[in-house]
Amino acid sequence: MKTIHEPHLMQREADDLRVAGKRIVLVPTMGALHGGHTALIREARTLGDVVVVTLFVNPAQFGEGEDYGRYPRDIERDALLASGAGGDLLFAPETTAMYPPGYQTFVNVERLSLRLEGAARPGHFRGVATVVAKLFNIARPHSAVFGQKDAQQVIVLRRMVRDLDLGVEIVVVPTLREQDGLAMSSRNVYLTPAQRVEAPVLYRSLRKAEDLIRSGERSAGAVVAAMTLEITGGSSAAIDYVSVADADTLDPLVTLSPGAPVLVSLAARFGTTRLIDNIHIRL
Amino acid sequence: MKTIHEPHLMQREADDLRVAGKRIVLVPTMGALHGGHTALIREARTLGDVVVVTLFVNPAQFGEGEDYGRYPRDIERDALLASGAGGDLLFAPETTAMYPPGYQTFVNVERLSLRLEGAARPGHFRGVATVVAKLFNIARPHSAVFGQKDAQQVIVLRRMVRDLDLGVEIVVVPTLREQDGLAMSSRNVYLTPAQRVEAPVLYRSLRKAEDLIRSGERSAGAVVAAMTLEITGGSSAAIDYVSVADADTLDPLVTLSPGAPVLVSLAARFGTTRLIDNIHIRL
Repeated sequence: MKTIHEPHLMQREADDLRVAGKRIVLVPTMGALHGGHTALIREARTLGDVVVVTLFVNPAQFGEGEDYGRYPRDIERDALLASGAGGDLLFAPETTAMYPPGYQTFVNVERLSLRLEGAARPGHFRGVATVVAKLFNIARPHSAVFGQKDAQQVIVLRRMVRDLDLGVEIVVVPTLREQDGLAMSSRNVYLTPAQRVEAPVLYRSLRKAEDLIRSGERSAGAVVAAMTLEITGGSSAAIDYVSVADADTLDPLVTLSPGAPVLVSLAARFGTTRLIDNIHIRL
Repeated sequence: MKTIHEPHLMQREADDLRVAGKRIVLVPTMGALHGGHTALIREARTLGDVVVVTLFVNPAQFGEGEDYGRYPRDIERDALLASGAGGDLLFAPETTAMYPPGYQTFVNVERLSLRLEGAARPGHFRGVATVVAKLFNIARPHSAVFGQKDAQQVIVLRRMVRDLDLGVEIVVVPTLREQDGLAMSSRNVYLTPAQRVEAPVLYRSLRKAEDLIRSGERSAGAVVAAMTLEITGGSSAAIDYVSVADADTLDPLVTLSPGAPVLVSLAARFGTTRLIDNIHIRL
């Protein structure tokens, strides 16, 4: 699989592809690819002529004390998985090529970035928006594919694309799950065997929320309470947040109304491992 | 002259031009065109196939109490001047098309934006960087032409282009001046006749700085003092700042060193009218 490390070489390649009339589809990842990522790449394969997979563990989206240093990295394994799923080109820049000395420009989607994950991880979405804007400028995609697992990321990036007129179509692929319901994540490898047994409680709590809402529950507080009970009753997890929010604005909801898209989402820690999950519901 | 108002139509036109192999050159302006702007357009004419002139009075770069409301607007006159200077296409969007309801994404060149004009006008360069990033995404230029008159703007935008990998060449055209040395500016029309007589003192103070430095003065403080005396002794102007700075970082200089590019710049008010000017010196 052809691998490009230099941003300006990737940009030149992308310019040539565009002049040749090729449709470019981007799959931005931090590597440590799993079944969720290969599903994104397979979807990308159906959307255009050239599938560019990026591998970049972006320091700008990690906070102090987070797992930037220990985040799993294995470019050779990732290249095999990306190629097997239908990727054409791997873009794997060095950190110093993306953030050279003197670097100081950041893209901020101001209000959406303060909610949920943004409240728990200050600066996270400023880092995400900045690196994705850079990757769009470097690889010049027509479309880019992201996972529903990072629901807020998708909402932030759609807003960025609209606001900055980036002209890139954002395509979202449903969350892939293990047999027992645990959302696939590069961070699942951090879990101890005992934590791994407990972790599916997160998805069970989301299913419980969906059941409640489908049976007529309209109080967001009641849904959050039931989810909290499910998680804390059935595991050692420490909850960061459990949220029932408007899926466009991420404003917290008090009462669920017919027709409004709802994002039910959560973050919880098993020991030092922080996991997130979510479901979308439209009444 | 063909005029486009809708961002998505401008973007489609630009995409078509790129696929056809045309080289696009952008001249972003706030309208109220004068000889300085037409010099930018004439320079743009030499740099590519299609010269796109934008007219947009960008609210995001004006602060509270500044002259956004009274900034001169005359699109028909501007279209004639732009066309006469060699412009091919006018892009003149409505404010609501550039900043629709819910808009919340901003580009910030963090450190450079706090200096000089940025210190005097908080948020100004966040507005400039954001609108120029949008215009680059909409008009997809290969090159963009700016005036040396807005020296810090050029420094901020060059940093933004490098940091965000925008792939647009920034071309700078020397400041155009009236016969008596006053830098051409859309804001000169605000001056009363008496102020207009005094205003060339700003350029005289810059010439004085250059003379001093060329004669061996190496103390930035001495240069600033001489300029301040020149301005306050010869006019009713109130000085916002007089600065001798490193032309790359905008760090204030204490001592001028051989080889380092120096930006001597100032802002001053005649009544409610705020004017800026600058010169570049390389020892």
